[in-house]
Amino acid sequence: MIKIEILSQGEELLTGQVIDTNAGWLSDELVRMGLTITRHTTVGDEKGDLVAVLKEIAARADGCLCTGGLGPTVDDLTAEAVAEAFAVPLQLDTAALAQIEGFFEHRGQPMPVSNRKQALLPATAIRLDNLWGTAPGFSLEYAGCWFGFMPGVPNEMKQIFNHAIRPAFLQRFPQQPKSLVIINTLGLGESDLQDRIQAIAIPKDVRLGFLTAPEGNQIKLLFDAGFSKSRVQGLIADFKKELGASVFSVTDDRSYKQTIYDVVGEQLTHKGLTLAVLETLSQGEMASQCLGQSWLLSAMYCQDFMQLAHFVGIDYLAKDTGKAWCQLAEKSAERVRRKAKSDYGLAQLCFNKQVDGQPPRVAIYTAVVTATTAVSFIDQVGGPMRRQQRQSALKAFDRLRIFLQENN
Amino acid sequence: MIKIEILSQGEELLTGQVIDTNAGWLSDELVRMGLTITRHTTVGDEKGDLVAVLKEIAARADGCLCTGGLGPTVDDLTAEAVAEAFAVPLQLDTAALAQIEGFFEHRGQPMPVSNRKQALLPATAIRLDNLWGTAPGFSLEYAGCWFGFMPGVPNEMKQIFNHAIRPAFLQRFPQQPKSLVIINTLGLGESDLQDRIQAIAIPKDVRLGFLTAPEGNQIKLLFDAGFSKSRVQGLIADFKKELGASVFSVTDDRSYKQTIYDVVGEQLTHKGLTLAVLETLSQGEMASQCLGQSWLLSAMYCQDFMQLAHFVGIDYLAKDTGKAWCQLAEKSAERVRRKAKSDYGLAQLCFNKQVDGQPPRVAIYTAVVTATTAVSFIDQVGGPMRRQQRQSALKAFDRLRIFLQENN
Repeated sequence: MIKIEILSQGEELLTGQVIDTNAGWLSDELVRMGLTITRHTTVGDEKGDLVAVLKEIAARADGCLCTGGLGPTVDDLTAEAVAEAFAVPLQLDTAALAQIEGFFEHRGQPMPVSNRKQALLPATAIRLDNLWGTAPGFSLEYAGCWFGFMPGVPNEMKQIFNHAIRPAFLQRFPQQPKSLVIINTLGLGESDLQDRIQAIAIPKDVRLGFLTAPEGNQIKLLFDAGFSKSRVQGLIADFKKELGASVFSVTDDRSYKQTIYDVVGEQLTHKGLTLAVLETLSQGEMASQCLGQSWLLSAMYCQDFMQLAHFVGIDYLAKDTGKAWCQLAEKSAERVRRKAKSDYGLAQLCFNKQVDGQPPRVAIYTAVVTATTAVSFIDQVGGPMRRQQRQSALKAFDRLRIFLQENN
Repeated sequence: MIKIEILSQGEELLTGQVIDTNAGWLSDELVRMGLTITRHTTVGDEKGDLVAVLKEIAARADGCLCTGGLGPTVDDLTAEAVAEAFAVPLQLDTAALAQIEGFFEHRGQPMPVSNRKQALLPATAIRLDNLWGTAPGFSLEYAGCWFGFMPGVPNEMKQIFNHAIRPAFLQRFPQQPKSLVIINTLGLGESDLQDRIQAIAIPKDVRLGFLTAPEGNQIKLLFDAGFSKSRVQGLIADFKKELGASVFSVTDDRSYKQTIYDVVGEQLTHKGLTLAVLETLSQGEMASQCLGQSWLLSAMYCQDFMQLAHFVGIDYLAKDTGKAWCQLAEKSAERVRRKAKSDYGLAQLCFNKQVDGQPPRVAIYTAVVTATTAVSFIDQVGGPMRRQQRQSALKAFDRLRIFLQENN
């Protein structure tokens, strides 16, 4: 088995100031290419640690992708550490220097002196051009392990990966891509999922995994290359039968249609429908999750009942009962729908949220309306504030999903 | 030097399906306790890999915090791997089993059979009660290294860390906390920052770091214990002098007031002022960043000019010039301000965003209004859609910050 590792370098990652998203992104790409990732490692600005881990990886793995430490500042040490670990001198790459100078020239700025350092590459390295920033990447082989070094800036890293690393990897590690199927569920805990699927006979060449995520719990099935499509479909059918309505989508690619927002978006796009939403507890989460979607015409956030009154034109709440809140949610959904001239209105009310400490579970009132119909639901969410924000938005869109399915 | 490592276990982390936020959170806590983190490692569901890395860490570090792999499913292997790596048998912890049964009893559900496995702990381990979920943690010492094992669910992990791990660590590794100062900037690149501060003499017992983040670039100064307050203040003054107006805050704790939103929030709270916003390109980002803030009364997102017309009551745009857009932004800010009955109105317009491919830089028109004043600005943002969303929201709040400072 080809073993690939990921190495991230940066004191800001090690001290927790920045969450490393590069390692996950790279892993995701490599897994889809059929490769196996065996380890992620993060080290900081101590050159000795970086030298040690480079040697360890060279002895253990067949390939390694490294991010970070290529910047112009004194704490960017990757090239020096590589030189020390693999006993190869650094030398000025004049083409790299010209590119860096060109980068600043294009912006009409003089090149800061500190950027010259970025053109010093290990003598045995192949330069990986960076057309999106100042730090060139480089690749080299040591002790049978192929290393690719990229800057830590996510955008530059992704560009260099796509343009240089991926082609090099495909050539060096030709693989038969495995196929991944993800069964996305909402409303069932991990133990419940596990228990419900116990009756299913899972073949030995399928790898089963579980994933508890804020967007819902997932069951992952990784099929070896050569597993027939009909056997894949048969197994998926078994899972759907055991899990019932809690399955909201089945995907065969991780970056598409794995959230409730994607599923709802597909339904709306397919039918050519538009939506307007009113948020309270979710405070911008619904709008943000639908970034770039043309079917979301408008979104409104109201902090409290008074704001709702100002914006939506509600005068008073007759009774503080669940039913009265549901009616108000329906009325609010209809107001935003009309105001936006959209096909659907989605409103969620919740004005008893608590800010201090660990809040108890709070009730949310979600309404879905069209020009002719209105439905509403009472649900509960709990946990820290950010979790309540996410969960309430998910619940609203799950209610909308089920409504769209039932009124197909 | 006491060396602490962090180990994360989970195939979903290794394959990039989930971004590991636990390692960063734990590191942040430990750094503030004065401890030094030397490495993060992530491994997946291969027991052999987990056994190997546990042995490596035991040989290398003085302490290690581990998350994940304590769940009820077949791919949760941590306890077994610990048993193998450290040659200690697993045994049923009856108190743990009673807690797990109690967890389900409290919810009125029978305990799934698979959860029984979570009560099997290494014989030499000390149980760390989990009152927030089903997976108990545990600690044990091997070869002079203290290991703390916690579930991967972030909320449960944090509770167990705070209740059990932190006190144990403070006792085992008494440290003099270092003090960290972060200088937060917006508008200067990393090279520019580096060049501007070259003239500053940085003492040897101060560790300098840079951090490029979506929320702005940061300069980090980590002072050894015993560094006097006046010397700290003197050094900060030197940095402020060189960096000028791009410094928007100086913080001495990483979890507080490090964003523009925190700084604006403090200004508004201090003056008892409220805000209403209108978003376009930022699509919910401003509302979401102000989660739980009582000074944000309402937020509105409009997809296009027609939505703006419906909601804000604008009839037409006389001329498609920057000046006309600025006037429209001011008018929109005033409308949302009046509607919400807030002290400030903040509106940002941008209707020429591009959805396909890598968009070019787009112009954004930001207006800040009060009952008596209106100002507006033209800025640009670029990059992928999510970046434009974040940058446009930051720019809007930075404009508001400067306005609040100038009209103090």
